[in-house]
Amino acid sequence: MVFSSKLIEDAVQELSRLQGIGKKTALRMVLQLMKMEKEQVDGFTSAISRMRHELRFCDECFNVSDAALCAICSNRARNHTQLCLVENIRDVIAIESTQQYNGLYHVLGGILSPLDGIGPEHLNITSLHKRVTDKQIEEVIMALSPTIEGDTTVYYIARQLKDLPVHITTIARGIAFGGELEYADEMTLARSIAKRLPIENYVHVHGKNAI
Amino acid sequence: MVFSSKLIEDAVQELSRLQGIGKKTALRMVLQLMKMEKEQVDGFTSAISRMRHELRFCDECFNVSDAALCAICSNRARNHTQLCLVENIRDVIAIESTQQYNGLYHVLGGILSPLDGIGPEHLNITSLHKRVTDKQIEEVIMALSPTIEGDTTVYYIARQLKDLPVHITTIARGIAFGGELEYADEMTLARSIAKRLPIENYVHVHGKNAI
Repeated sequence: MVFSSKLIEDAVQELSRLQGIGKKTALRMVLQLMKMEKEQVDGFTSAISRMRHELRFCDECFNVSDAALCAICSNRARNHTQLCLVENIRDVIAIESTQQYNGLYHVLGGILSPLDGIGPEHLNITSLHKRVTDKQIEEVIMALSPTIEGDTTVYYIARQLKDLPVHITTIARGIAFGGELEYADEMTLARSIAKRLPIENYVHVHGKNAI
Repeated sequence: MVFSSKLIEDAVQELSRLQGIGKKTALRMVLQLMKMEKEQVDGFTSAISRMRHELRFCDECFNVSDAALCAICSNRARNHTQLCLVENIRDVIAIESTQQYNGLYHVLGGILSPLDGIGPEHLNITSLHKRVTDKQIEEVIMALSPTIEGDTTVYYIARQLKDLPVHITTIARGIAFGGELEYADEMTLARSIAKRLPIENYVHVHGKNAI
């Protein structure tokens, strides 16, 4: 693309650094920003700038945070004896958005993946062990992706914690709501039959208080 | 979506102002920006900010510009007797990207649309008339979209300029390169038969010097 303005070219160049944004989409964004009020654009850029410069990680759970302790860890109304172990902050947002979980989180910062050179020392596992010991955690819920690496990580961490007086659970696997039985993969279907639930649980899950 | 950080929430909020960007896409962008170096993010925000604050419009052709006269109008190597009339700066970028046009532009800033309340007084038509008169323009190429409004605008402007010693042309309509005949609409197909070209032109157009 040939731009007759260096200012537009630079802005398009910067916006197209973002994943999934090509030159044409970036140009459309630039033209939209061009038409916005100057104050609005200032708000736009300063929100991004402040996010990058002021954002930090929670000292306790490694979730993103505006202060030393994140809004979840510092919330006294939440259950401080329950930890939900997740891979990254996107999973925290996903689980928080269900509004069904009232405990705390622990963000691993990845999952074990020897092929990518990610070993236990790269993840927040030591801090998890310390936290479970020091804070009298009663339950650790493993909410990792059901992949080979995810399962390996669950297994590894479960072994690390096995001498501590903590209850370890994993999130339920099975057929998703709205999913069609015939399109489910064999492993999921087999497991969802093996781990079938009494009908009372079914009613319970469909009600409001799932957790 | 529930974010545990106000900084992230604000950044997602601002990014999702952009057309075609939902909350999930905005969050993915924020997570990417979060991982970028601070200097890179500063470059990102300052390019957008400078674009909005420093960008102006060319005094001659109303194209976006970094100075009083845009890079095209101030280029002495271009043909200053030819004007290409376009609706907006996006069309300038599209035509410039073909690298086949060597004249100047005149950006109308819209097309006539009585239903949307856009009349001749809202477009850069008076300035076009003055420019054609003062600058001894020899040809005005109408490059507007082939819609009812576009054709109305072409007709209106052609009438405004009819007393001036200027040659008025419109861009060719017809079957697009790579287009399948059977899928072309009837009007386009009928017109491309009525306005058929001698075979010499065909060879010429397929060569390098189309304009």
